[in-house]
Amino acid sequence: MNSSYPSVLLENAVNEFAKLPGIGRKTALRLVLHLLRQEDSQVEDFAQAIVTLKQEIRYCNCCHNISDSETCSICSDKSRDTSVICVVENIREVMAIENTIQFKGLYHVLGGIISPIDGIGPSDLQIASLEERVKSSEVKEVILALSATMEGDTTNFYIFRKLQPYDVKVSIIARGVSVGDEIEYADEVTLGRSILNRTPFDESYKLIVK
Amino acid sequence: MNSSYPSVLLENAVNEFAKLPGIGRKTALRLVLHLLRQEDSQVEDFAQAIVTLKQEIRYCNCCHNISDSETCSICSDKSRDTSVICVVENIREVMAIENTIQFKGLYHVLGGIISPIDGIGPSDLQIASLEERVKSSEVKEVILALSATMEGDTTNFYIFRKLQPYDVKVSIIARGVSVGDEIEYADEVTLGRSILNRTPFDESYKLIVK
Repeated sequence: MNSSYPSVLLENAVNEFAKLPGIGRKTALRLVLHLLRQEDSQVEDFAQAIVTLKQEIRYCNCCHNISDSETCSICSDKSRDTSVICVVENIREVMAIENTIQFKGLYHVLGGIISPIDGIGPSDLQIASLEERVKSSEVKEVILALSATMEGDTTNFYIFRKLQPYDVKVSIIARGVSVGDEIEYADEVTLGRSILNRTPFDESYKLIVK
Repeated sequence: MNSSYPSVLLENAVNEFAKLPGIGRKTALRLVLHLLRQEDSQVEDFAQAIVTLKQEIRYCNCCHNISDSETCSICSDKSRDTSVICVVENIREVMAIENTIQFKGLYHVLGGIISPIDGIGPSDLQIASLEERVKSSEVKEVILALSATMEGDTTNFYIFRKLQPYDVKVSIIARGVSVGDEIEYADEVTLGRSILNRTPFDESYKLIVK
C-alpha cells in the first residue's frame, strides 16, 4: 500500500495523521486530502494552533489542570469552595464534572491512574502534591472521582492511605444504576452497589428531569 | 460546552481539529490531548508535514495527479502503455486502481465530477486538458472509471461527447455483481447490468482466488 502514494510529501502527512489514536491510513488520507483542498491560510492556522498549544500550554500550579496562566480559572475563582477537592484523572473529567454544574469546589488532576501494566506508578502522578495541598490548606473533604475500574480502585486506596494521617474526610462518588437505565439490564455488581449505598427517600428527593 | 474549556489555546486546537470531516468535538479533544502527551518534536513534525505538503505539493502537468515533481512517477514511467488513459475523479481512485495491478496505462485525474448541486461544472474539472491529450498524442482508448452515480454518469456522457470528434475508443469499467457477493442480495439495477454485459465463458476464464 505504501509504495502506491504518488508523493512522498503526501505519504509523510498521511503517516503523521495515522499516528493519532483511532485514525487508520484510509481516514488519514481522507483528512489530508481535505486539508489539501482548503486555503493555504486555513492549513497554516490548523498547524499553528497545534504548535502554539504544545509550546505555550501551562498546567495550573495548584490543581495541575491545563491552563493558559499560572493558576487556572477554577483555582483562581473566589466564589469556589476551597474546602473541597475533587480528585480526577485528567482534564476531560474536569470538563465532564463542570458540565453537571453540581460541584463548586476545586479539582486536583492526577494526570492518569496507577497502572502497572502501562508502567504508571504513584510517582508518575500528582499524588505527592495532593498530599501537600491537604497538609498546607484548610481542605475538609477530598472526593475521589476516578474510573470505576481495577486501576481506579487501586489509585483510590493508595490516595486514601496517603491522606489518612491528616484531618480530612475522604469520600468517593456514588456508584449505582445510571439515570435512565432499567433495573433489569443493570449488571449485578452495579446493582448490588446501588442497594448497599441506598440513600434516604423523602419529599426533598430530586426528581429526574431530562 | 464551549465555555468549559479551561484554556483558549486548547479550545483553538480543538476547533481546528473539529473542522476536519467526520471529526466531532469529543474526538477532536481526544486527538488534541493525545498530541499534548507527545514529545515537542513529534508535534512539530506533525504540523510541519501538513504545512510542507500544502506549500510544496505539485500536480502532474500531464495527468494532474498529486506529485512531487513536474511530471508524476506514472506519467514518466517508460514501461507504461501511453495509448490508454484511465479517467478518474481523484488521487484515491488512482491509488485504488494501482493496487489492483491490472492496469498498465496512464491516468487522467479530473479533480472531481460534474455536480450542479455543489456548483461544480465541466470548466472546474480537467476535461479540456483531457481533450488536449487525446488530440495531441497517440491515445487509442479512454477508459471512464468514475463513480456509478448520477453525477458520475453525467460526467461520463459529457466526456464521451467531447471526445466523439476524435479517433479514440471510449470504454467504461464493468458494472456488475461484486466479487464475493451472493446473487440474491445484489440490487436489481446492478444485477440487470451484469446480465446485459455478460462476458463469454470458456476455459480461459479466470477463477476468483482470494
